[in-house]
Amino acid sequence: MVIQERALRTRRAILEAASIVFEKRGFVAAPLSEIIAASGVTKGALYFHFASKEELARGVIEAQFSAMGQLRLQGSPLQQAIDSTHAVAHALQHVPLVRAGVRLVIEQGSFTEPDPEPYLRWVEPAQAFLEQARTEGELCPEVDVLAVAQLIVALFTGTQLMAQVLTQWEDLDERITAFWRVVLPGLAMPEALRRLKPEGAVKFPDGPEVPGSAG
Amino acid sequence: MVIQERALRTRRAILEAASIVFEKRGFVAAPLSEIIAASGVTKGALYFHFASKEELARGVIEAQFSAMGQLRLQGSPLQQAIDSTHAVAHALQHVPLVRAGVRLVIEQGSFTEPDPEPYLRWVEPAQAFLEQARTEGELCPEVDVLAVAQLIVALFTGTQLMAQVLTQWEDLDERITAFWRVVLPGLAMPEALRRLKPEGAVKFPDGPEVPGSAG
Repeated sequence: MVIQERALRTRRAILEAASIVFEKRGFVAAPLSEIIAASGVTKGALYFHFASKEELARGVIEAQFSAMGQLRLQGSPLQQAIDSTHAVAHALQHVPLVRAGVRLVIEQGSFTEPDPEPYLRWVEPAQAFLEQARTEGELCPEVDVLAVAQLIVALFTGTQLMAQVLTQWEDLDERITAFWRVVLPGLAMPEALRRLKPEGAVKFPDGPEVPGSAG
Repeated sequence: MVIQERALRTRRAILEAASIVFEKRGFVAAPLSEIIAASGVTKGALYFHFASKEELARGVIEAQFSAMGQLRLQGSPLQQAIDSTHAVAHALQHVPLVRAGVRLVIEQGSFTEPDPEPYLRWVEPAQAFLEQARTEGELCPEVDVLAVAQLIVALFTGTQLMAQVLTQWEDLDERITAFWRVVLPGLAMPEALRRLKPEGAVKFPDGPEVPGSAG
């Protein structure tokens, strides 16, 4: 049990060091030696946990999803969809692991070895929120749930990419608010539209913690 | 004059070869030797036109913009904004230079050396369409023209990125249509909304030519 805990801690240290190096240099240019030095583990320990740089990158992407999977939101389904995008925006601003994961998905997973999986895993929760919104009568009848779920992921991806380039994510939150402000009239029934908050219903404190996350 | 024409043709051949190699391998992994071999020019000729790989990448990005700058569209300003996104979608499917330009902007210009300029140059025409739409009464009064112009570029970027990963751009056009279908109710006045075509008002033939482009 103690050994397992230590192994988990080592794995975590490697992932955190890797996320900093991947975020700074990108997948192709990131040297494993720099990740080893930054994590303070031996080369052997790194290879025990991750057989290759590719596997390490997958580990960073995976860790990003498990961090976000712990989010607990409240409110109507559409409000939860809105709040989850603000939560990811907050994580992008404060958590290197999330930033590195997103960079890897966009660079490696979109160009070098196109991999739909990370995108589809973002689509899943969006689709679940929208289906729930349909059940609860929040959604306009003409909305195609799967198409719009994919669209929301695409819109978030583009918005965060542009916020990164233009302002180093500083105004990402306002951009996400602007995106919901434009998109909601085409999604939500008038009654829902009146009470939905495009700016999010949850206030995130400065710092890496995401409120409602279990760990 | 003949010499200048030949120089332009050499420059064009280098850019086309570079776009194929950049598109396949990305900026970091693209070897200049492969670009030289593919373009059929000497190393000296390449360096005469482009002093470095960075400069070559800027040339590819630039060529992409000049191709799109030749677009001539008709119809109401909002319809032209819609049609221009379908034109870029069409170019992405058929013109390697445009695909390479977009990959370079996203990889190199967003991560390796963040450069807002290419994004801002896409924002300009979107802003011009929206301002014209405001003058002609197509736009809802609460729309913030600059914020929405940036949003449209972000949305297009994310949509094309996801279409590339999921379907190699095959369904990009339907995704662009879905994006306008969701976004237009938040942008256009009811009268304009009734006549606007989210699927675009121009039919693009299969192949690299963009109708209305002057060259």
